[in-house]
Amino acid sequence: MKQLTIIKIGGNVIDNSENLHQFLLDFNALPGDKILVHGGGKIATELGESLGIEAKMVEGRRITDIETLRIVTMVYAGLINKNMVAQLQAKGNNAIGLTGADGNIIKAKKRPVKDIDYGFVGDLDENSVSSTTLNNLLKAGLTPVLCAITHDGDTQLLNTNADTIASAVAVAMSLLYETRLVYCFEKKGVLKDVNDDATVVREIKSSEFEGLKADGTVAGGMIPKLHNAFEAINKGVSAVYIGKADELGELENGSFGTKLNP
Amino acid sequence: MKQLTIIKIGGNVIDNSENLHQFLLDFNALPGDKILVHGGGKIATELGESLGIEAKMVEGRRITDIETLRIVTMVYAGLINKNMVAQLQAKGNNAIGLTGADGNIIKAKKRPVKDIDYGFVGDLDENSVSSTTLNNLLKAGLTPVLCAITHDGDTQLLNTNADTIASAVAVAMSLLYETRLVYCFEKKGVLKDVNDDATVVREIKSSEFEGLKADGTVAGGMIPKLHNAFEAINKGVSAVYIGKADELGELENGSFGTKLNP
Repeated sequence: MKQLTIIKIGGNVIDNSENLHQFLLDFNALPGDKILVHGGGKIATELGESLGIEAKMVEGRRITDIETLRIVTMVYAGLINKNMVAQLQAKGNNAIGLTGADGNIIKAKKRPVKDIDYGFVGDLDENSVSSTTLNNLLKAGLTPVLCAITHDGDTQLLNTNADTIASAVAVAMSLLYETRLVYCFEKKGVLKDVNDDATVVREIKSSEFEGLKADGTVAGGMIPKLHNAFEAINKGVSAVYIGKADELGELENGSFGTKLNP
Repeated sequence: MKQLTIIKIGGNVIDNSENLHQFLLDFNALPGDKILVHGGGKIATELGESLGIEAKMVEGRRITDIETLRIVTMVYAGLINKNMVAQLQAKGNNAIGLTGADGNIIKAKKRPVKDIDYGFVGDLDENSVSSTTLNNLLKAGLTPVLCAITHDGDTQLLNTNADTIASAVAVAMSLLYETRLVYCFEKKGVLKDVNDDATVVREIKSSEFEGLKADGTVAGGMIPKLHNAFEAINKGVSAVYIGKADELGELENGSFGTKLNP
């Protein structure tokens, strides 16, 4: 089976042009087929502020109303995605920037209104990702660069969590490729001491997860992150890595972040 | 040879959601492979005004400074392109929205500064379009939807005339397909009497062009339009049509606009 690496980056990489440049060099240098998934960054928030559109929060969660959807479509699918593609092209990578609407690659369902109406937010299920179209693009020598916008198949674009997109794409593609999923975030990995970057836990097995939660090594926002990562592994992804974007160059020699194994 | 139809629409279709809906239905109903090319519309101008960015004009020509480039990238490649793709998907068309940077489909050169510095504007030459990548997408059952943004291959996105993109794509693809090029604009075609829609000239041969200029049937902005159209025909495009978007449904029965023949 051919190897495929799916890498997700967040706003902390996107917002800093030097970090982004180095990250894209490292991304490009990785062997095998690759898919990049990116979230937003502060540009969308800044554009909203410039336009006088206030971020709407309900119980601490951001709501994607129709004005916010317009902004994230412009910023994620337009400004960020296309500049990233142009930069990858300049580095010799035949990148192609896409939303989930393009080629019907990711069809989401608008999140049902229960206690909170999240607005135009898309949720994914196991049938959301079209692995056939992604595979056709990879076979044509293209590197898909996916932003955090999907659609419902019935004209509506939907704002969708980039972590979730990366995981759903990795699971769907694991039928066709030996698939690695890499989450880049602001820490060097899972840390034994959250304040000490030198305490990266190099490897966690699925069977060790409960113990690490119990002893407090994995806490807070890291719990759902690892939960989703192990779920991806249970569904066919070979390995999930969690680490810092500026260390991506270490992925091949085994010293990048925390590796989650089955 | 398989048939390919390249259709260019402008702001007058994009700005009116009912017109756009009907146009996309007619576009989708056309037989054979298709590529859609779209320009901007007033949304970009409105966004610029909302952000307090003044349109910069020199000798009556709009200049694409860095702020304007950001806006057109957001509006053309993000908002307009992705909403159009989502609408085509809902109509059963497997559309994929792209700039010229995506898949390196269109590599332009920044317009040299002579009397006027047009800013980040791209010009095309005969090597600009990658017919291989476009052909791979078509063979995968995808319908490329191209917006008026290209790149220079060296990280820079460039604002590029959508008419020029449509023509360059049609010429490049005519090596692989029997290619028709359709320009939709605000008139029903070339009119003998510019104020009377009933006077559409149904067919113009290359040899008749000079005569129609001399007798005034073709005048003003129509002269460069037809000049470019006949140039595309000289370079291998089978036929060029010029007409109104809301009559696209008539293309197959021969009563759409003006047909330009070799």
